[in-house]
Amino acid sequence: MSKVKVNISMSLDGYVAGPDQSEENPLGIGGEQLHEWIVPLRAFRESHGAEGGEVNASTPIAEGILGNVGAVIMGRNMFGGGPGPWGDDPWKGWWGDKPPFHSPVFVLTHHAREPLEMEGGTTFYFVTDGIESALGQARAAAGDKVVSVGGGASAVQQYLAAGLLDEILVSVVPVILGGGSRLFDNLGDAKPRLEQVEAVEAPGVTHIRYARV
Amino acid sequence: MSKVKVNISMSLDGYVAGPDQSEENPLGIGGEQLHEWIVPLRAFRESHGAEGGEVNASTPIAEGILGNVGAVIMGRNMFGGGPGPWGDDPWKGWWGDKPPFHSPVFVLTHHAREPLEMEGGTTFYFVTDGIESALGQARAAAGDKVVSVGGGASAVQQYLAAGLLDEILVSVVPVILGGGSRLFDNLGDAKPRLEQVEAVEAPGVTHIRYARV
Repeated sequence: MSKVKVNISMSLDGYVAGPDQSEENPLGIGGEQLHEWIVPLRAFRESHGAEGGEVNASTPIAEGILGNVGAVIMGRNMFGGGPGPWGDDPWKGWWGDKPPFHSPVFVLTHHAREPLEMEGGTTFYFVTDGIESALGQARAAAGDKVVSVGGGASAVQQYLAAGLLDEILVSVVPVILGGGSRLFDNLGDAKPRLEQVEAVEAPGVTHIRYARV
Repeated sequence: MSKVKVNISMSLDGYVAGPDQSEENPLGIGGEQLHEWIVPLRAFRESHGAEGGEVNASTPIAEGILGNVGAVIMGRNMFGGGPGPWGDDPWKGWWGDKPPFHSPVFVLTHHAREPLEMEGGTTFYFVTDGIESALGQARAAAGDKVVSVGGGASAVQQYLAAGLLDEILVSVVPVILGGGSRLFDNLGDAKPRLEQVEAVEAPGVTHIRYARV
């Protein structure tokens, strides 16, 4: 059965998005800093159809994140377009006509909607019957590839609390955002048990991989 | 001038002590897990007058933490004995007759008290006129050795917000405490800028060293 993984960049104070998320600042104020380690990499640029870029100690991490993903799950807030019904001219995601997922993406939402096929192999499916249903659909689509829970914080928290994540790769960035969405929060009485699998020092970031015990 | 450093163990969800700190649970519920990486080490045991112990990738980190400290600063909560006046039979710290500091320790408090000399080179000085005064006294005592801000969270936050820390070594432990004292919190409008200096993978912990930019 496919593994369920999270790869996420986190500030030193635990945020995966800064305060005041908006259409202008999808990752909140200062949130773009969380991804400064990956954006210049050749591996990232190639996945976004661009050439050139850096190769450094983060490269194998980025290749691991970007490769072998068979399906993606994300929360409605990460998909964007604000909360509530989709409206007449529904939001099509932050990523333009050719999103960088190149696989089926299952969006957790309370508002039903027809699947949205984009260029480059990405189709967004809108799942209204909960995280386990989304995971079942994602597993079926992924085959023996990875199901990646992309975020945001709330989606990760729900899968973590439910014990459904096999692996979490946290990329700790030396930034203090001071507010926003905290990754390891709202877990209620769930006390997920994790073990450290590896840690990788790279320029401006430390990648720590955890597995469910 | 002596460097001002913090060495602190932090849970994956950002806590340096668990919930419900008490005399029975000085580090809060589950907080002892934060130090499981250091307690078995020979370097730690030697500093506490014990023999034997492990040597692993955390050893150089522990030696760096335990060696070359000329003075320690800690908050009243870390020194313990509850908040408020000291009373007739004042608390003498968590560490018995021979505390493991072996240097002057400056305790931040609102309640004046005579210095308390312990065995093994530790004397507790009680500083009532603020963090800068405590730092000045600690620098004078430390000479060219390190001033270590020992904790807890509140003391570290105050020095961090004031821009007085040269280095922070965070030992990230794969534990989710779900509550307690968060390290990078209550910084107000201060946005301390840090750069990553190094990251060290070790059994059950990742050490990340940050310097003030």
